Amino acid sequence: MKATAEAPANIAFIKYWGNADANLRLPHHNTISMNLSGAKTTTTVEFVSSLDADEVFLGGSKVDGTGAERVSKVLDHIRKISGNKQRARVTTHNSFPTAAGIASSASGFAALAVAAASAAGLSLTEQELSTVARLGSGSATRSIPDGFVEWHAGSSHETSFAESLYAPEYWDIVDIITVVDADQKKVSSTLGHSLADTSLLYPARLASMKEKVESVKRALAEKDFPRFGELIEEESLNLHAIMMTSRPSVLYWSPATVRVLQALREWRQEGLLAYSTMDAGANVHVITRGEDETAVTQRLQALKGVEKTILGKPAAGAHLVK
Amino acid sequence: MKATAEAPANIAFIKYWGNADANLRLPHHNTISMNLSGAKTTTTVEFVSSLDADEVFLGGSKVDGTGAERVSKVLDHIRKISGNKQRARVTTHNSFPTAAGIASSASGFAALAVAAASAAGLSLTEQELSTVARLGSGSATRSIPDGFVEWHAGSSHETSFAESLYAPEYWDIVDIITVVDADQKKVSSTLGHSLADTSLLYPARLASMKEKVESVKRALAEKDFPRFGELIEEESLNLHAIMMTSRPSVLYWSPATVRVLQALREWRQEGLLAYSTMDAGANVHVITRGEDETAVTQRLQALKGVEKTILGKPAAGAHLVK
Repeated sequence: MKATAEAPANIAFIKYWGNADANLRLPHHNTISMNLSGAKTTTTVEFVSSLDADEVFLGGSKVDGTGAERVSKVLDHIRKISGNKQRARVTTHNSFPTAAGIASSASGFAALAVAAASAAGLSLTEQELSTVARLGSGSATRSIPDGFVEWHAGSSHETSFAESLYAPEYWDIVDIITVVDADQKKVSSTLGHSLADTSLLYPARLASMKEKVESVKRALAEKDFPRFGELIEEESLNLHAIMMTSRPSVLYWSPATVRVLQALREWRQEGLLAYSTMDAGANVHVITRGEDETAVTQRLQALKGVEKTILGKPAAGAHLVK
Repeated sequence: MKATAEAPANIAFIKYWGNADANLRLPHHNTISMNLSGAKTTTTVEFVSSLDADEVFLGGSKVDGTGAERVSKVLDHIRKISGNKQRARVTTHNSFPTAAGIASSASGFAALAVAAASAAGLSLTEQELSTVARLGSGSATRSIPDGFVEWHAGSSHETSFAESLYAPEYWDIVDIITVVDADQKKVSSTLGHSLADTSLLYPARLASMKEKVESVKRALAEKDFPRFGELIEEESLNLHAIMMTSRPSVLYWSPATVRVLQALREWRQEGLLAYSTMDAGANVHVITRGEDETAVTQRLQALKGVEKTILGKPAAGAHLVK
């Protein structure tokens, strides 16, 4: 009744923003991502007959409130399909500092799904595990399969799952996670999702997504890095355009965010190809080819307001560790 | 055959971005603005029989290229309707430093239209003058009438003109033009306009403009400052969302732009109401009530990356000075 799993964070090239079904976390369109070697969560789930309620510990501290409720939602689903009624003790820790502003919900809920299923004695397929992870966090769906991943939007719990497009070694590109000092208050991703359709621009975003998913998949298939880079940077700015124009407006950027974005444009003019993609936060994920990783990292670290960089290489998905 | 006029810059609350007719500079929808006391252009036009070509001097330096061609386009129109065939010497200077990054084309072409018409002996109505100014720069249309102005999009040269909604003294609000250090290269407004319809989000922007114009006019009529502020900040972010998602992407912001935007959000939380609106550049126009001008100005000047502020109160439109 005990299992441990680890799962990677992932960076989305086509973003998930807004729900067709908020309870099931069903997105409006497919999304594309890459799992990251440099940021993972390890989670142990133990079902304990003496517990009255689930207990969640993150990095040694007890988690309450919404975070704990989301964990219980995943555990409830596991209990429902396994018939096991016991409450669980969940202990989890991240390989990256929580203050780094890297979203830990994707890796966290993917690791939880895999560990909880195993602890309950279930043998779920990768596809099934990705649907379970989704109940805790939409982006966690994509942290289950290996490497480069597509999440199929679907229209029900069973049909909204992720699968691997390519193994991690398929393409030597990297994500240099560029952590910037961000003093403004955060708006949670969950709240941001709920605001998406208040933006006057959101219908136009949705109308363009299907073609965009196809374009990114084609650039991936052809390993056309400049094309891929232009597409993912545009997609990220499109996402942040929706956030900025939501009611109320959500501006995740800090001054250093813009410094990085402008620097990348200059470097590309010089022929050093690196592109940005950003999630719901001020940090910039800088995507470049493996051969340019050192040069780009050095330049990023020299920019004012950049606190540190974390290297993410394409990585395997969630898996049991014991 | 000589006349001098001065005209104010203006700040748009509903922005002009993208043309229905690029040659005539006909916009897709009406726009709303306020003329600014703190930034004006003074222009003298003299028709001289001995000249073979128009001569343009800005702040003592001869202007060539596109800038001079745009001046000649306005003068050609004046020559056509007046029958006067002489070329002109145009001398112009701005009350604000040209390096300040404040668009001078609005005040410049409004002053040119008024001075050239008078120098050619024409007595044009305010409405006619605004159409002439528009041939040089779309936003110049709005610098002809007084105070708070609406530019009617129209569908031809004659029907695309501006008129005053309210005199300058109607409402005691101010524009604190916040000049930030911006080291990245500029993209001209004219080029930006031509890219507008390459953004996937542009159709949604256009679809929402008519209602937005009505909302801003209503907030103006009711002098509802918080509502007005929310509307104009959203409209500005909507404009920049289009710019960022154009192909190629145009990112006018600098790090200090974001610092100002985030600061305004904090101050509003404290109850100090000031809202942003931005044109095609990194500077932030901070709109606040007259009673809060001093407090907001002091706070803005204390922000890192803010080089200076220029105060713009609601102002009269273009007029002859001799």
